[in-house]
Amino acid sequence: MTADMALLPRINGPDDVKALAQSQLPLLAKEIRAELIDKVCATGGHLGPNLGVVELSIALHRAFDSPRDSIIWDTGHQAYVHKMLTGRHDCLGSLRTAGGLSGYPSRRESNHDIVENSHASTSLAYADGLAKAYQLAGQRRRVVAVIGDGALTGGMAWEAMNNLGACDRDVIIVLNDNGRSYEPTVGALPKHLSQLRDGTATSNLFEVLGFSYLGPTDGHDLKGLQRALTRARRCKGPCVLHVVTRKGAGYRAAEADVDDRMHTVSARPVRPASGRPKWTHIFGSELVAIGEDRADVVAVTAAMRRPTGLLPFSERFPHRAYDVGIAEQHAVASAAGLAAAGLHPVVAIYSTFMNRAFDQVLMDVGLHSAPVTFVLDRSGVTGPDGPSHHGIWDISLFSLVPGMRVAAPRDAVRLRDLLREAIGYDAGPTAIRFPTGECPAPVGARARIGTVDVLTPRPTRADLLLVATGAMAAPAVAAANLMRAHGVSVTVVDPRWVFPISPELLNIVADHRVAVTVEDNALPGGFGETLSHSAQRAGITTRVVPLGLEPGYIAAGSREDILAAAGLDPRGIAETVQAVHWPSPSLVGSLRSLPG
Amino acid sequence: MTADMALLPRINGPDDVKALAQSQLPLLAKEIRAELIDKVCATGGHLGPNLGVVELSIALHRAFDSPRDSIIWDTGHQAYVHKMLTGRHDCLGSLRTAGGLSGYPSRRESNHDIVENSHASTSLAYADGLAKAYQLAGQRRRVVAVIGDGALTGGMAWEAMNNLGACDRDVIIVLNDNGRSYEPTVGALPKHLSQLRDGTATSNLFEVLGFSYLGPTDGHDLKGLQRALTRARRCKGPCVLHVVTRKGAGYRAAEADVDDRMHTVSARPVRPASGRPKWTHIFGSELVAIGEDRADVVAVTAAMRRPTGLLPFSERFPHRAYDVGIAEQHAVASAAGLAAAGLHPVVAIYSTFMNRAFDQVLMDVGLHSAPVTFVLDRSGVTGPDGPSHHGIWDISLFSLVPGMRVAAPRDAVRLRDLLREAIGYDAGPTAIRFPTGECPAPVGARARIGTVDVLTPRPTRADLLLVATGAMAAPAVAAANLMRAHGVSVTVVDPRWVFPISPELLNIVADHRVAVTVEDNALPGGFGETLSHSAQRAGITTRVVPLGLEPGYIAAGSREDILAAAGLDPRGIAETVQAVHWPSPSLVGSLRSLPG
Repeated sequence: MTADMALLPRINGPDDVKALAQSQLPLLAKEIRAELIDKVCATGGHLGPNLGVVELSIALHRAFDSPRDSIIWDTGHQAYVHKMLTGRHDCLGSLRTAGGLSGYPSRRESNHDIVENSHASTSLAYADGLAKAYQLAGQRRRVVAVIGDGALTGGMAWEAMNNLGACDRDVIIVLNDNGRSYEPTVGALPKHLSQLRDGTATSNLFEVLGFSYLGPTDGHDLKGLQRALTRARRCKGPCVLHVVTRKGAGYRAAEADVDDRMHTVSARPVRPASGRPKWTHIFGSELVAIGEDRADVVAVTAAMRRPTGLLPFSERFPHRAYDVGIAEQHAVASAAGLAAAGLHPVVAIYSTFMNRAFDQVLMDVGLHSAPVTFVLDRSGVTGPDGPSHHGIWDISLFSLVPGMRVAAPRDAVRLRDLLREAIGYDAGPTAIRFPTGECPAPVGARARIGTVDVLTPRPTRADLLLVATGAMAAPAVAAANLMRAHGVSVTVVDPRWVFPISPELLNIVADHRVAVTVEDNALPGGFGETLSHSAQRAGITTRVVPLGLEPGYIAAGSREDILAAAGLDPRGIAETVQAVHWPSPSLVGSLRSLPG
Repeated sequence: MTADMALLPRINGPDDVKALAQSQLPLLAKEIRAELIDKVCATGGHLGPNLGVVELSIALHRAFDSPRDSIIWDTGHQAYVHKMLTGRHDCLGSLRTAGGLSGYPSRRESNHDIVENSHASTSLAYADGLAKAYQLAGQRRRVVAVIGDGALTGGMAWEAMNNLGACDRDVIIVLNDNGRSYEPTVGALPKHLSQLRDGTATSNLFEVLGFSYLGPTDGHDLKGLQRALTRARRCKGPCVLHVVTRKGAGYRAAEADVDDRMHTVSARPVRPASGRPKWTHIFGSELVAIGEDRADVVAVTAAMRRPTGLLPFSERFPHRAYDVGIAEQHAVASAAGLAAAGLHPVVAIYSTFMNRAFDQVLMDVGLHSAPVTFVLDRSGVTGPDGPSHHGIWDISLFSLVPGMRVAAPRDAVRLRDLLREAIGYDAGPTAIRFPTGECPAPVGARARIGTVDVLTPRPTRADLLLVATGAMAAPAVAAANLMRAHGVSVTVVDPRWVFPISPELLNIVADHRVAVTVEDNALPGGFGETLSHSAQRAGITTRVVPLGLEPGYIAAGSREDILAAAGLDPRGIAETVQAVHWPSPSLVGSLRSLPG
């Protein structure tokens, strides 16, 4: 498509952006928007945030001298335009695919990219570190952090502002104020920003904290933006430039999407062919049902009411649902406070973002044996968002918390059951983890032993056991079927509660010669290793072989492809089992010839 | 001592405080101070912070109705006076001992205590949660959070203020402004507070964030305090009462201690009889030496320059040392920024406080392979500060971070060596963990195999191997000596680098029938479990038995007693080894008769 464009194809770096005449910039912006809409609607990705920063990105690359000046994109999902202006516009079609352009800044792609972590609110800390280093080296290099109003509610932003505001280093915070993250930003901060936008503020937060304040500036007025950025560039010491943008700007369909402004668009049809509902949806609807029964159940979200499935609950019980902003630490610690007053909070946070609240899970919830239920959506391998978004450490982290109980449902039926069990447990914290996407078809149980479901016809003594956690149950059963077709009998069980290890599960393990565990968590400290140790300490001699994700950061790709590459699809599971225990090349050969 | 006092012995709860005449309060304050100085100087504990809040605590219990109203003490080390006023003054002599009064609020002790987590900046989140719950229940119960200016620099405080300031709930923040945590509070916030104190502020941070602001009030003027608290109590919606206190107030020795205002006093003489320097001191002096050699080495502390040993470095290289305030997340993420600009940051944080920055270690440092060295002081069992202060999860947490390397020195010589090795490694992050207290006498190596030190005379093939990490080397060698006296030969090795597991260590393990690992980390995900899995995956059939801390929160007590109770003293190690492998009652009997 860029071939038909007049300007974008000629942009190979910031120098080309600077070389354009001012009068050409609106056309460049138009071409960028057309390309964004065309490509991102095909690949999927963050459309709304990027449409909102087209002019800002152009103006930044004209006012500053990247990479000598450091431009840091907070969270990073709004860096597509920056990528297009720094020599990568022709790769946009490969966005968020394995081997393609990352959906976030990536140092492997370009020396214009700095921060690869796509969790929110970090940019100001990097800015502080870079500015300190440049000052130490006696270099006059500007540091510019572009941060949204949503990310500014995160505690890291405060910690950084406290540091930046008191120093004499030339750090420019570009506050990209579009009034929302996934949904409208909550709290005292957006009220204040609204007063600043309206000119009704009597005081200025940023000036109180030692910053020069410039703005508010219309984020879609190219000339005004460049003037403002040039002023910011000349500023001595720390400076905040308040830029007002519209998420989804310039694309009617996005601007009309009042719920979300097309924050993300999916590469696939919203309603998949299977017609099966998503994990998130099942959770959301079941929580409403639980909420009808129990008035003490309240819900907490960190700026993701809709993506975590809490919207129905918050609509049904508006006074019992709390959005605390992008503030995972507060979500967890305030839940400890809610629990201390006798309520049962359900804290729904993506698995990867829960890492930020580990101390609060351990010290505020765990130490107090607070009856808080954590709902870890997007656990395991997520896919196209890359290393910062996989939820592959939650079993390991939550298993460190004394008194914690962790459930992993294998399908919608078990999700509903386990959610009720978790919320029904009032003696301490619980967590329930499930992946992104659609719930698989239900995997029925042949028997129940204690808390353990037996999924295959042979519930009793056998040679080989597969212990499949959560969504790994379906591929494990498929693997067992594959092996059965080759005359190898395998028992598959689902522990349902993956932590702590249940005595019944240990008994089942003891009845087998070898047990292979299957989980979409990193191996270190995961379910398999924990089961292995529990068995060892119980004097059980069964060999336990953990199958899961090898230590490492996992690049973007489809969930299916990543799991298959890790041996976590039916064929991979079957191959692992047989390679460990029946090293017969012929079976390996026949498994390879089967469809996964 | 209280027997000689007129008022304190009669105080059995807040009602007794309320019943006193206004004219009696100065005497009560005087008696409380005398008792504090007497008892805390004997037991050790946080003296300065409690001397600073004597009047504030009295006034709070007169103005509010605890426990119906919730009084939350941020961090909690300043709650001694609160304890004395709520029926516990006669137990102050047992402070911070096993089975005695906790050095922090404790729900087991009193229904006037709410938050047991003694990490900073959490109180406002609890206040938010409690206030939400009271509102939901239709109860008019006040929530009062007492938070220091130091704790207010933590991100959690911001996240909470953003939530509290925008709501209509009656939450009162008592800002206990003494201008310091361990040392003067840093950043933009204390500058602003100073302007508020001086009356030179043109804007007010708290009003900007939606709070009513009262103060500043002299925190040692009982009448003024009660008036101000009564006004705060009548306030509709969120309110900040700015109280100005002096840490160490009323005790000349503390007020004269300009460095630290007797933040803590030790139960023992500062210079112990052994005359051996502390781990912290060794680290601090070696870092200065490294700093002389390498201009790219910079240091980062989160408000604990002195306790973490960074004072000498910051005095020698003032421009290369950064105190970021109580802001562990910022310490770590800004270090990633420093590293991105080519420096090698050394981030010195107590092990337990590092939990708060796990996401930043994983996503900002680890994902970027940033050459940051983490110095985890107070790792393992710390002692009298109780469950929130033990550093028993760091090996587990850091071992989850891909590319991380973790060292555990066994003595001063190894601390110096390993610190140089860690800072010399520029391909990714490193961590070095060591306990509180004095460095033990050096434990010499008989041989070095790869990175592994062999500590006992028999470096080659033997039946039994002890793999001792860090400070557990000395008791492991002592255990080996105990066993040798009984004719049992044991090889003791120190891996020095506890993560990742080195090939040389695996070879040594493979040469033995059984290996017992010794660590003062929690067992789940710790060194022993990791070694066990690495051995298993390498096809090594040696039985690996991890010895460490059982999952759980460890109450206060002396480090020695806690370790002994966990079987981590020489006798316990020897007993574990022999109970597992030579189940001969006679040896158990003889070991028990030996001095540990």
